[in-house]
Amino acid sequence: MELRPPSVVALVEELQQLPGVGPRTAVRLVQHLLRAPAGASRLAAAVGRAAEQVRHCSTCYLITEDDPCPVCRDTTREGVICVVEDPLNAWAVEATSEFHGRYHVLGGTLDPLHGVGPDELTVAALVRRVQEGGVNEVILATNPTVEGEATAHYLARALHAVGANVSRIAFGLPAGGEISYADQVTLSRALAGRRGMD
Amino acid sequence: MELRPPSVVALVEELQQLPGVGPRTAVRLVQHLLRAPAGASRLAAAVGRAAEQVRHCSTCYLITEDDPCPVCRDTTREGVICVVEDPLNAWAVEATSEFHGRYHVLGGTLDPLHGVGPDELTVAALVRRVQEGGVNEVILATNPTVEGEATAHYLARALHAVGANVSRIAFGLPAGGEISYADQVTLSRALAGRRGMD
Repeated sequence: MELRPPSVVALVEELQQLPGVGPRTAVRLVQHLLRAPAGASRLAAAVGRAAEQVRHCSTCYLITEDDPCPVCRDTTREGVICVVEDPLNAWAVEATSEFHGRYHVLGGTLDPLHGVGPDELTVAALVRRVQEGGVNEVILATNPTVEGEATAHYLARALHAVGANVSRIAFGLPAGGEISYADQVTLSRALAGRRGMD
Repeated sequence: MELRPPSVVALVEELQQLPGVGPRTAVRLVQHLLRAPAGASRLAAAVGRAAEQVRHCSTCYLITEDDPCPVCRDTTREGVICVVEDPLNAWAVEATSEFHGRYHVLGGTLDPLHGVGPDELTVAALVRRVQEGGVNEVILATNPTVEGEATAHYLARALHAVGANVSRIAFGLPAGGEISYADQVTLSRALAGRRGMD
């Protein structure tokens, strides 16, 4: 006999669609939600509202409720575009308060083996933004992974072809790190990227 | 500047209320939901429906949409009550197809240091069910943990006092296990619980 009520079975199935949520975690989440019904109602409303109101900015592809997004509407931003893989990365860059330009969200990295080419990302839109002018620099801030590096190299070629000034964020030791714990790739890059001191 | 739309901030906050979901996981879940808006709407509906329709059975405290629950309404079930800590455990017992009796969900284990006494669990309701008659046996299926064991011992005393026939599920080696990998407590219990072979 199936002891789980139909609405719980349905909820477990929906939760299992989430990344990293297996059957056991799903049931645990259900239990928690059922123990706190007020919280569950609030969560349902929050999921529904976000799904309804959130879209991508048609210029920079950031997640936004208004199109164009607040950054694209902000006339005080500098003519620099920071290219990132996903909105999370843009949020992280913005949180540093070091960057006062605009963003461009690629939507992932090139992955030819899985059928992800430039057309699956927002590459053409990025090239178009550069061609429209007013862009002094494009900072490639894809992740320091094999895929992120390959994507950055592809973008650099495509952007140089339309005359853009392209840079790549620096690789090196993370702040607060310990040299003896750093992996070889990181340490090699930190050495290669050394800068003169006065 | 806060780049995250208000509805995303609200959703991240609600998701972080879930057990095991920190800020990073919450943002990942949000990203997934935003990538699949149809899935997000279905999840919102499923959470809302479960929160609205699901309650505890007033007899056995299983999670149910109808009170009394299907098990308590089922007149073919045997007069045996399997006592478990939470509904998950009842679902697991039911899935074995070895058990054809009824259930009683305690709602946790005794934990005097954190203020959980018999009144915080459904102990009185269990004793009342035994006193009402028709119960041939009470199987204590609390978890094989220190808390589960202590709770089982407390329940055994309380149930013996009203004349119940009380048993405890067996402890021993799990099926498919490897004796040399078993912890000492499990192996000791497996030895102590040995049974004659013909």
